[in-house]
Amino acid sequence: MIELSHLQVLSGEWLSGGGAEADVVVSSRARLARNVAGFPFLTRASEEKRAAVEELVRASIKDSSLRTRVNYHDLAAMEHVERQFLVERHLISRDHAFAQGPRGVAFAPDERISIMVNEEDHLRIQSLRAGLELREAFELANEIDDALEERIDYAYSSQFGYLTACPTNLGTGMRVSVMLHLPALVITREIEKVFQAVNKINLAVRGLYGEGTQASGDFYQISNQVTLGKTEVEIVDNLVSVIPQIVKYERKVRQTLLQAKRVVLEDKIWRALGVLRFARTITSEETLELLSLVRLGVHLTVIEGISTSTINELLVLSQPAHLQKVESAKLSSHERDVVRARYIRERLSKDMGPVG
Amino acid sequence: MIELSHLQVLSGEWLSGGGAEADVVVSSRARLARNVAGFPFLTRASEEKRAAVEELVRASIKDSSLRTRVNYHDLAAMEHVERQFLVERHLISRDHAFAQGPRGVAFAPDERISIMVNEEDHLRIQSLRAGLELREAFELANEIDDALEERIDYAYSSQFGYLTACPTNLGTGMRVSVMLHLPALVITREIEKVFQAVNKINLAVRGLYGEGTQASGDFYQISNQVTLGKTEVEIVDNLVSVIPQIVKYERKVRQTLLQAKRVVLEDKIWRALGVLRFARTITSEETLELLSLVRLGVHLTVIEGISTSTINELLVLSQPAHLQKVESAKLSSHERDVVRARYIRERLSKDMGPVG
Repeated sequence: MIELSHLQVLSGEWLSGGGAEADVVVSSRARLARNVAGFPFLTRASEEKRAAVEELVRASIKDSSLRTRVNYHDLAAMEHVERQFLVERHLISRDHAFAQGPRGVAFAPDERISIMVNEEDHLRIQSLRAGLELREAFELANEIDDALEERIDYAYSSQFGYLTACPTNLGTGMRVSVMLHLPALVITREIEKVFQAVNKINLAVRGLYGEGTQASGDFYQISNQVTLGKTEVEIVDNLVSVIPQIVKYERKVRQTLLQAKRVVLEDKIWRALGVLRFARTITSEETLELLSLVRLGVHLTVIEGISTSTINELLVLSQPAHLQKVESAKLSSHERDVVRARYIRERLSKDMGPVG
Repeated sequence: MIELSHLQVLSGEWLSGGGAEADVVVSSRARLARNVAGFPFLTRASEEKRAAVEELVRASIKDSSLRTRVNYHDLAAMEHVERQFLVERHLISRDHAFAQGPRGVAFAPDERISIMVNEEDHLRIQSLRAGLELREAFELANEIDDALEERIDYAYSSQFGYLTACPTNLGTGMRVSVMLHLPALVITREIEKVFQAVNKINLAVRGLYGEGTQASGDFYQISNQVTLGKTEVEIVDNLVSVIPQIVKYERKVRQTLLQAKRVVLEDKIWRALGVLRFARTITSEETLELLSLVRLGVHLTVIEGISTSTINELLVLSQPAHLQKVESAKLSSHERDVVRARYIRERLSKDMGPVG
């Protein structure tokens, strides 16, 4: 069992609630898919080849001159709950957590950088930042990529660019995305229009944990689909130019809602806080829904005395693996719901004072 | 407009939360139906006859040697909201409030006694008490009846007893009832068994405001159906012997629930309190439902710091006419829901301290 206790403290920079347009943009992410030349893609690699890739990449990370210190963790040796813990923290993907075979992840203490080894590709370099900070996220991922490239011979074609296990990543191997909080667009059902507009310009909409996951708590990930035929900077610029329009739309609808249905909206927000402060058992799905409303309330200054970083902390720490880490115990689903409710009550009382 | 401001303070003895078996029995009521000899029943009476009855009874009440001081109010001259106010307080019936023609009510400041004039019968003498105090309620109604009989010649037949507008009241003219709070029996759906058992022994089950009203918030009124061929004391004794069995059943199921599903039950109770403390708009139906759960929580000592009399006060004062009285304004349904939510929040904060 590796020591993850430092992660129990909320250290991730992207959870700070800061960054540009933080009322709507939770976080920005850039990730680069890379493969090691001379080794087959993982879908076709034997156990031995996978192990060889893992060893090579691990050593390269260790030896490289990264400005950011990263620690490497062997996922194959890690318990289920700990891998789940890293998923909840967005440091690895679900697929990576629950795959088989030699694989690992290196990440920085501030969680701005994580390097997944033997996920779908041999390497997935990811940078995560609070707010709308796509360029900064891309630059950091790019810097890590350059540093690793000094040690690793990447699979690269002068015709196609970086070669990847899945052709949808070919070329730049880059996926940039932002996590948006769009409660007003969901309430008014304007969200469908956003989806349609976004799809038209070849952007994808996904849920809270990326590909194949459902949107929940009104959180949506928007990312580029095209990785080929454009430069990294063009891809970033494209997303950077689109997102502010969605942000503006969400803000406008929030104000419209507040003017047209203030009482109904405020009531929804306050009831959400009421349930979070009083419930004795609560599922993670309901927690997400209610925290989404509270987050909206904070940014509309309906609720005061609670910060975005507290809401982010609750979003992350109320998840199953985090609760089990905090409790140092394996918990059944029912037990988790009780522990979750208690944790949320205590955390909110810390910020807002006790309730009778 | 008559002065009802003294009623804004919660003066009704039956709302004290006291009396026997108060965890389950909210209140006990006895009422006697009487008619004046020589006048037709109201269903067949002309406007003039109705007016004459009203004048006669009003004068008799005024002149009688009642130990309890009562004030007479002319319902025909009273505004709609004020009549509704008296209904919410259980001082008059809905039918009485919304009927036409000369009619009135006399009641005592402690609200233990009310005498409805020209309701279904010429007189309806009612006594209301907190808890299971049926004998006391009957004795007080009986005392008023005796005092009035010195002044009024009641319609009486040596064969049938007191003559009443509806044959279901013939004989004693007496209806005794208890208001029960049966949340555990409702949650477990055992309540149907109670209804069946009660009906078998000729008792009736009704809602919060008597005949023809729906049960809400788990409050049920149980009363005798037979008024003929038994003495008043036998009727009271019958109900007095049955009610403790229902009380025992409800208590047993409460404990069973607490043992088998403590978390679920406590969660329901606390969430109800959370919504009441945080909502910005709330209907009277939802208020009743939630207060029912909070009342259960108080009697199971799940919730502390709030008294049964506060819950009763909330039950009564959160009703439409009371809210309008408190606000001194005619309110739309939406406005009432907002005022109700604010009133409930403030009242609970007074007892339990503020929430953030």
